Amino acid sequence: NSLGPSARTSLLTACTVFYALFLTIFSLVLELAHLLNDEESRKLNKKDIIFGLYMYGGSLVFFFYMYIVLLLNPRWYSTMDYLRKMFGVCLTRPKVSPSSDSLSSAAATVRKVTHSSPSAGSLFLRLGSVVFGVTGVVYYAFLVFLCDLDPTCSGLSISLDICAILFIFIQMHFIFCNWKLSITGSHMVARIGTMHLVAANLWTWIRYVLMEEGVMEKEIREVFKHRPVVLNQSHSSESSAENSMELFSESSRKDEHDMKMGQGSCQAVECFLGSLSEIMFTSIVEYSLIAAAVMYIVWRNIGRQDHGSTYVKRKHQIRVDCSKTTTGLFLGLAFLAVTFTSMVVYYGFTMMHRSEKAAYVYAFTDMFQYVLSTIGVLTAIYQMRALKYFNKKTHIQNSDQELLDQILLSIGLVGELIYSVAGLVGLTGEKAWNSFSFILLFVHIFRLIQVGTQTFLLHVARSVRMGGDDREAQPGKQAITFLLTANLAIFFMNLFESEKAGVSEVIIEYYGKRSWVFLVRSFSPLTIFYRFHSSVCFAEIWKNVYASKTHPVHNTATSTATPINI
Amino acid sequence: NSLGPSARTSLLTACTVFYALFLTIFSLVLELAHLLNDEESRKLNKKDIIFGLYMYGGSLVFFFYMYIVLLLNPRWYSTMDYLRKMFGVCLTRPKVSPSSDSLSSAAATVRKVTHSSPSAGSLFLRLGSVVFGVTGVVYYAFLVFLCDLDPTCSGLSISLDICAILFIFIQMHFIFCNWKLSITGSHMVARIGTMHLVAANLWTWIRYVLMEEGVMEKEIREVFKHRPVVLNQSHSSESSAENSMELFSESSRKDEHDMKMGQGSCQAVECFLGSLSEIMFTSIVEYSLIAAAVMYIVWRNIGRQDHGSTYVKRKHQIRVDCSKTTTGLFLGLAFLAVTFTSMVVYYGFTMMHRSEKAAYVYAFTDMFQYVLSTIGVLTAIYQMRALKYFNKKTHIQNSDQELLDQILLSIGLVGELIYSVAGLVGLTGEKAWNSFSFILLFVHIFRLIQVGTQTFLLHVARSVRMGGDDREAQPGKQAITFLLTANLAIFFMNLFESEKAGVSEVIIEYYGKRSWVFLVRSFSPLTIFYRFHSSVCFAEIWKNVYASKTHPVHNTATSTATPINI
Repeated sequence: NSLGPSARTSLLTACTVFYALFLTIFSLVLELAHLLNDEESRKLNKKDIIFGLYMYGGSLVFFFYMYIVLLLNPRWYSTMDYLRKMFGVCLTRPKVSPSSDSLSSAAATVRKVTHSSPSAGSLFLRLGSVVFGVTGVVYYAFLVFLCDLDPTCSGLSISLDICAILFIFIQMHFIFCNWKLSITGSHMVARIGTMHLVAANLWTWIRYVLMEEGVMEKEIREVFKHRPVVLNQSHSSESSAENSMELFSESSRKDEHDMKMGQGSCQAVECFLGSLSEIMFTSIVEYSLIAAAVMYIVWRNIGRQDHGSTYVKRKHQIRVDCSKTTTGLFLGLAFLAVTFTSMVVYYGFTMMHRSEKAAYVYAFTDMFQYVLSTIGVLTAIYQMRALKYFNKKTHIQNSDQELLDQILLSIGLVGELIYSVAGLVGLTGEKAWNSFSFILLFVHIFRLIQVGTQTFLLHVARSVRMGGDDREAQPGKQAITFLLTANLAIFFMNLFESEKAGVSEVIIEYYGKRSWVFLVRSFSPLTIFYRFHSSVCFAEIWKNVYASKTHPVHNTATSTATPINI
Repeated sequence: NSLGPSARTSLLTACTVFYALFLTIFSLVLELAHLLNDEESRKLNKKDIIFGLYMYGGSLVFFFYMYIVLLLNPRWYSTMDYLRKMFGVCLTRPKVSPSSDSLSSAAATVRKVTHSSPSAGSLFLRLGSVVFGVTGVVYYAFLVFLCDLDPTCSGLSISLDICAILFIFIQMHFIFCNWKLSITGSHMVARIGTMHLVAANLWTWIRYVLMEEGVMEKEIREVFKHRPVVLNQSHSSESSAENSMELFSESSRKDEHDMKMGQGSCQAVECFLGSLSEIMFTSIVEYSLIAAAVMYIVWRNIGRQDHGSTYVKRKHQIRVDCSKTTTGLFLGLAFLAVTFTSMVVYYGFTMMHRSEKAAYVYAFTDMFQYVLSTIGVLTAIYQMRALKYFNKKTHIQNSDQELLDQILLSIGLVGELIYSVAGLVGLTGEKAWNSFSFILLFVHIFRLIQVGTQTFLLHVARSVRMGGDDREAQPGKQAITFLLTANLAIFFMNLFESEKAGVSEVIIEYYGKRSWVFLVRSFSPLTIFYRFHSSVCFAEIWKNVYASKTHPVHNTATSTATPINI
């Protein structure tokens, strides 16, 4: 009562953060309970469904509010007026009529948003979120189909899946279209809504990370369970290392068999989709991570614009300067072709059940990738000496997007570092050093070097710009293009293979301890995300550093047009 | 002797065409011989290898000539000079030294090319050729790997595969970078070289179309062979239609089994890659089709520019106007998500061996796709009434690209029409009309309607432009965006599923005759290509029709910048 308005706003803002935190902790506990209960099949119980409906329902209501109340195109109001006159019905919307009177005057009073705030995500990131989002929609649609086949499946869980489809699709549209949004309507509602969305995305994220871990655990448990049986069955001519991998494919074939027999030992979705379901899980994990970060940026932007600020239309022009890229692009394509070839070879060896050779192929491809991309990074750093450093303080425009990029890159980096360091530490426990463990050691060392130098490059390149005399040369652009493609190639390789029985299963043998493997493997989605987000950052560098239009360092007369952020 | 220079040029030009025609006919006969011999495994004999080495070798020599003699960047000459002075070696290149003397004066005299001629392929088409090309490279690299494993594989056939990798990759680079190339050097060499490239691409095309047909033939033969056995094995509760599909999966599993047993009844590559190899075959077919058409356009452009014309640099700026697209884009994404979901469901049913249901899913998805995209086409045609027709004569600039688009679209259209009409005619032979044959009938009718209206739209939209008063509305752009995405979705569906045992295997039952099936199925790559190229054409329409800069209809003062062809 005695508080001033700014103090109250600050307090209520803090409350929305606590609300999101509470929801996140609640969902974490709820999902952990499932994992720790060691349930065979992940049945949704009442609690889950009610919580899920609350999360998705709240998000959908908020999206409805945003699209109808805030974002609606003014011309719809005239249509509504027309309909109202036609049918003589008085709709129960009291606040619409006054604004539709002064329809032609100003759209700003109708749309309580503006698209003038700093960008909350580059084009590449938004395209990525669309790809991941579509994969997620397909996954949930397939769940609906499975539920439809299964007579024991309740209507509530179908409705939950449908809510998830709507949620993912609408949020995808929102992220793609409203990346410069700044809400000037009711701040409180917007803050609660965006925080609810952050919580919903984090919930999805936690859920699928734990689900992946559950799948992994089952897979590993299967190995330890079947182990003596397979050892007896196996021919004596095979080495022990081959056995341990053989039995992975063995067990997976058994799963397939079980599924055919309808014994239901594997969960429905994983049975049908196999490795496809792991790709879909990973996509959902990446999608919800991106969405949570973007929603956090939108939340941060609330209240920065005044209430009465005019409506700024979305920008649509994209301008790309593709000079000095083809050499880097085609080197990157060669890198991609080598990666795909090695994936096919790996797949071929796995099918031939020569799994040790497959593991070698995997390790050598990894080493090839890290060495080559480290060389690319070093070349880029060497060539970019010529560029000018600029003071970040003068360049406030993109700070939000940079914050977003930094948040996402740090998350990925942490995952990547834990994965590599844990792998190295695990290797130190090795008793008998054969050639394969040396190869693994080198792979992990090169991986650490690559990640370190690449993150350094990404950090440095953010704060350099092209000087006027570099206009022709564009130093380092070819290397940046190569690194963009190379990181995409590593991303594809990790997306399709890291979940399969690959090198890490040999590492299981070395490590022995299950919990250790869990620690390492649960960071696998983050390493995939690191690769994806590195590509996003390289695309940003590619666009910003070599922008030929205005930038703070270079003040010629040609700087009439402002740079367009794609 | 008595001929004038223009007559001689014309004669020699005709000779290059005959050269390409002779090579194409020769390769057609060579490849048909393989097919008609009914060989079990497609062994390469001496003739094939010599012919292949000649084709690839000639192409590589021509590319070497192009890159070294015609396209080399002048700064390399100074490097060469430097090296020559350093080592005191006299290189045996007589013609280089004079031009390197006057190095700084003019690059035009050194590079005997210019990038000023009309565009020979849009960005979308070139990106497609890169994707298809990388797939082809991966395929050949895998062949090298297989050959390396196989002790009976000769060194010659490895060298042929390596030549193919180099050929595909270098040609990919050439197509991507030199799409506005016009050769001003020796016309005769350039004409022979480009015609050799056209022939080499047509050879690859013929080879892989026939190879696909061979695979198909074996598959179908397998069905007819195993037929009685499976009928005895099958449970009595299943209907006859289900049997016929069951036995496909049965036979494919048998193949897999055979492969494991090492009986070698299936060819090496198909064994390893399964349905992946069919996607790769299709990619190579599409790639060589695009490459042949582009090379034909390059051939056509030779001699249109004078010898002494100045060197024009490649254009690199890309400008895209993305306004009024999001609704269409997201409708298209929903379409894509539905398509992918149905593919997953189809895959699930196939795995559960409920193949009749899978066939229904496939047919209903087809119908859904054709009906929705027909609605999209009609909407686009209705909305585009508002646009202005312009006289094509005044707009000569893009005629080459339009010719290329027309050639490629016609090839695809012919394939699509033959496929649909043959399907319809085949259905007329049906004796017992059950519900499934009615569905197939509707699918084929809708397919014909969709293809007809879409080709009409593509034809009409090529010759309309936005008038000055449509600047804000951009009528039809949303529909065009939707159609672009929808065609991509149909393309993916056809690429991944058309080769699998799907609806067409039910049609085999109806048709009965093997030769008929061959006729229909060998046009399957062309129908896939039709979908891909429709997307390319829609992207062109999207860019050209709604270009906000200069166009013949609208002559305001803002038309200072020329439209940039991406």
